[in-house]
Amino acid sequence: MEIKIAQDLFENEAKLADANKERMKQRGLMAVNIMGTPGAGKTAIIKNTARLLKIPMSVIEGDPASSIDTDLLKTIGIPAYQINTEGICHLEAKMVAKALDEFEVPPRSILFIENVGNLICTASYPLGEALRIVVVGASEGDDKPFKYPDIFQTANAVILNKMDLQAAVDFNLERFYKGIQSLHNKLPVFEVSCKTGKGMESWVNWLAVQVATFWAR
Amino acid sequence: MEIKIAQDLFENEAKLADANKERMKQRGLMAVNIMGTPGAGKTAIIKNTARLLKIPMSVIEGDPASSIDTDLLKTIGIPAYQINTEGICHLEAKMVAKALDEFEVPPRSILFIENVGNLICTASYPLGEALRIVVVGASEGDDKPFKYPDIFQTANAVILNKMDLQAAVDFNLERFYKGIQSLHNKLPVFEVSCKTGKGMESWVNWLAVQVATFWAR
Repeated sequence: MEIKIAQDLFENEAKLADANKERMKQRGLMAVNIMGTPGAGKTAIIKNTARLLKIPMSVIEGDPASSIDTDLLKTIGIPAYQINTEGICHLEAKMVAKALDEFEVPPRSILFIENVGNLICTASYPLGEALRIVVVGASEGDDKPFKYPDIFQTANAVILNKMDLQAAVDFNLERFYKGIQSLHNKLPVFEVSCKTGKGMESWVNWLAVQVATFWAR
Repeated sequence: MEIKIAQDLFENEAKLADANKERMKQRGLMAVNIMGTPGAGKTAIIKNTARLLKIPMSVIEGDPASSIDTDLLKTIGIPAYQINTEGICHLEAKMVAKALDEFEVPPRSILFIENVGNLICTASYPLGEALRIVVVGASEGDDKPFKYPDIFQTANAVILNKMDLQAAVDFNLERFYKGIQSLHNKLPVFEVSCKTGKGMESWVNWLAVQVATFWAR
């Protein structure tokens, strides 16, 4: 019975996500699900991307509590909408549907959906996104692909942030790539530092290609 | 109905945890539930604690996949047992019960239970532990108590690791303490660096007091 409940749950989630996807597609919104550990720099990635890529962007923020990231984004002129999950460890399609009802997002734009800081359950809940990006920080160690394989397996790209700390934390790049390759051969990995700005250009160029392709469909 | 199912679930979890607690108490095992973000340094804390505190210790390791931390602990002579949660984002009392069946733990010792890297759901599942410790890294930012209040509210102590990176990541200690104080006035916080060893002594001394008190009961 447990398996049956789980199947129904995930079928229902997939349906709700498809409805979001259709709704966003009709308005030309490319949704980017930003997943990662707490403190990996998800908001910093969005902030820096908005500075470099002159395409309209807005953000749905998911956190168990607080509106810290939403407040920060608004102060720098990025429209943002806060979802507080009240103890739920991931965003769900119905939360995003509600946000789409209430949040005025400009058509033909990028809609970042910053998920709750969690490398596990976020991977199992589709939101209707066009892209799934995993953000991890070098300071969290080079073993994450081995320990949390599912989220890397379902991602479209990985952003390895905080590369300015690589030497200080003895991060072994070779081991990290070995982990990635063991799961998903062609996954693009962008080594960046939000602090110094290094590496951000490659990520932004890749993202621009995805947006252009999305709009060309 | 959803609320009723959740109530039953948590009542059942509490019962299983109490059974673990009684079982460990009879053998003089002080269980310490180590929770925290992925890559906060939970295993490093255990490793360094074992080096400084000459009391028998063993470790139950929880990870979605891999046996990296268990292998590491065994190579330095710390008995360790791996639980792979297969996509579940937290340890549960029944997993610990199974570990207690299979894992030979010396009586009158400290049993660390290293939880899955997750700041949310781990807080809701009691395992039968005597102490709940939250480990976060300075490199993950000073806003964690505001964003993930539940886990800090139910903890007995916080270890703030990676303090060697404080300046490099602009970690604001005052903001972090403001977050902690807003939730739980008397929560002890240990500022440490597993890399340099700084601050570990205060943590180990505090832990020794807890063990002695536990055994005196």
